[in-house]
Amino acid sequence: MIAIGIDIGGTSIKGAAVNDKGHVFEVFSMPVEKGEDQETTIIKLRNLVKDYISSQKFDEEIVGIGMGIPGAIDSPRGIVSYSNNLKWRNLNVRELMKPLGYEVRITNDANAAALGEARFGAGKDYRDILMITLGTGVGGGIIIDRKLYEGNEGKGAELGHTIIKMGGRQCSCGRKGCLEAYASATGLIADAKIAMEKNKETALWDLSRTGLNAKVIFDAAQAGDKVAIRLVKNYVKYLSEGLMNYFNIFRPEAVVLSGGIAKAGDYLISKVKRYCKRNHYGYEGSPEVDILVSKLGYDSGKIGAASLFFE
Amino acid sequence: MIAIGIDIGGTSIKGAAVNDKGHVFEVFSMPVEKGEDQETTIIKLRNLVKDYISSQKFDEEIVGIGMGIPGAIDSPRGIVSYSNNLKWRNLNVRELMKPLGYEVRITNDANAAALGEARFGAGKDYRDILMITLGTGVGGGIIIDRKLYEGNEGKGAELGHTIIKMGGRQCSCGRKGCLEAYASATGLIADAKIAMEKNKETALWDLSRTGLNAKVIFDAAQAGDKVAIRLVKNYVKYLSEGLMNYFNIFRPEAVVLSGGIAKAGDYLISKVKRYCKRNHYGYEGSPEVDILVSKLGYDSGKIGAASLFFE
Repeated sequence: MIAIGIDIGGTSIKGAAVNDKGHVFEVFSMPVEKGEDQETTIIKLRNLVKDYISSQKFDEEIVGIGMGIPGAIDSPRGIVSYSNNLKWRNLNVRELMKPLGYEVRITNDANAAALGEARFGAGKDYRDILMITLGTGVGGGIIIDRKLYEGNEGKGAELGHTIIKMGGRQCSCGRKGCLEAYASATGLIADAKIAMEKNKETALWDLSRTGLNAKVIFDAAQAGDKVAIRLVKNYVKYLSEGLMNYFNIFRPEAVVLSGGIAKAGDYLISKVKRYCKRNHYGYEGSPEVDILVSKLGYDSGKIGAASLFFE
Repeated sequence: MIAIGIDIGGTSIKGAAVNDKGHVFEVFSMPVEKGEDQETTIIKLRNLVKDYISSQKFDEEIVGIGMGIPGAIDSPRGIVSYSNNLKWRNLNVRELMKPLGYEVRITNDANAAALGEARFGAGKDYRDILMITLGTGVGGGIIIDRKLYEGNEGKGAELGHTIIKMGGRQCSCGRKGCLEAYASATGLIADAKIAMEKNKETALWDLSRTGLNAKVIFDAAQAGDKVAIRLVKNYVKYLSEGLMNYFNIFRPEAVVLSGGIAKAGDYLISKVKRYCKRNHYGYEGSPEVDILVSKLGYDSGKIGAASLFFE
């Protein structure tokens, strides 16, 4: 069984046929032109998918087309309600893709990635998992009983937009003190800029000459730079408190971290585990939550989107 | 179809036969003796249930015994891992109740109450709901697809123990800044005491001569006392920010508020609704969440415990 899995990002669209064993066939891609009419982008994509399917010779049946899209996605109706990233609004993706003759299912991009990891990645041995994406923003996906939980009209699982510090930092969503404002790469970089202004001697000045990003900060910390170490320590505190909130709410079997910051791997994870162990919820007898790093990386979106068709 | 629903509290145990239409038959109860051996309490309860069943003449078949118990409940195994309230620890309730000859299912008390409201109360027309209990503490229950979601080993849904203000007020659970520390009656009363010390002229001094509780504070606010009005305003802010976190995580169709504070009814709910409308998550197109008050009141625990047997 094969489904086409499409991962729509802010600047490009990538897709591939994926089979129900998680195998990814040849990948196709197209850019998202800034300012282009939203319907035009989807029609271009439709033509690309049409050409892709007819150019490939699949031995298995194509059961549908799954898509992960950033923003507020009305998945039951197949409509993008609003994507701040793409500036799409009330875009009926299902209707526009209809001429291809396949069933079309869409979901939020972080949901798709979570489903991919749950079916074929770091989460495949678990029943209930959360996935938290630590990138420009903080996204989330909820897998309950091996199925995606999306909430009413597909608008749940906004795990980055929960306040951990009332009256705190302004978040892009309008609220103040959201997890995203602290645990995203954007939040970490903002913290680093403030710390650098106060510490002219930190190695971060030198290391960031070609650009300051999360990797530079984690690399500097691992190399022993004191300012970077303090930044990472603080970051671990924010992320861990957010994670422990989710542990108490869902008590999942595992949480999978993905996105740019999760690339820090064991260096980050070991610190998060230590913080959570020391500061966990007081009740005795609650099972530990496995803290894992994404296995599928950038493929998780495509695989997860296709997995919308794999029970 | 009938099940016995038992609601265990810190000072008393109440139970009743409940049928699958939500009808509650004659109620039985017994005190929980402080300091009594934990097994003894359950054996006394077992005898009480035995007498109750044999004294009643039910036309319908009894399918099992359901119990809601405060604390960390290992529901799959039927064991109370730890109850701070009752000082029970590793108590195998299922095993102890076995001689009665019925299947025994147990869950956390807030979970039971949520299931009761979902099946027969304020939540009965919805698929995905949350219940938040605003009492001495803040408890929670999660209903997904009309079923109870309990998390790994039944230890999830601790909705009160999520930090909304990092580094904030000490919570009974060991963390700092939990929703419970602000949105419980205990939190409100603590705030009131501080405000009263600063405002000797507030009507709260007079009204609280026989004891300060949430009702006194809400009544004073409704009667126009400025200090009480400010307390309620502040309380609404804490509760609403916590609720909005849950809206973004679950995007449920409805949230049901219960417990002592929810008795303030429309006076509270109207303010919470207004706050949430003004300060909601920035994404467009997210459906509103109905904010409701519990309908079953103190019966919700018994009805919900019995409902563990009603699909």
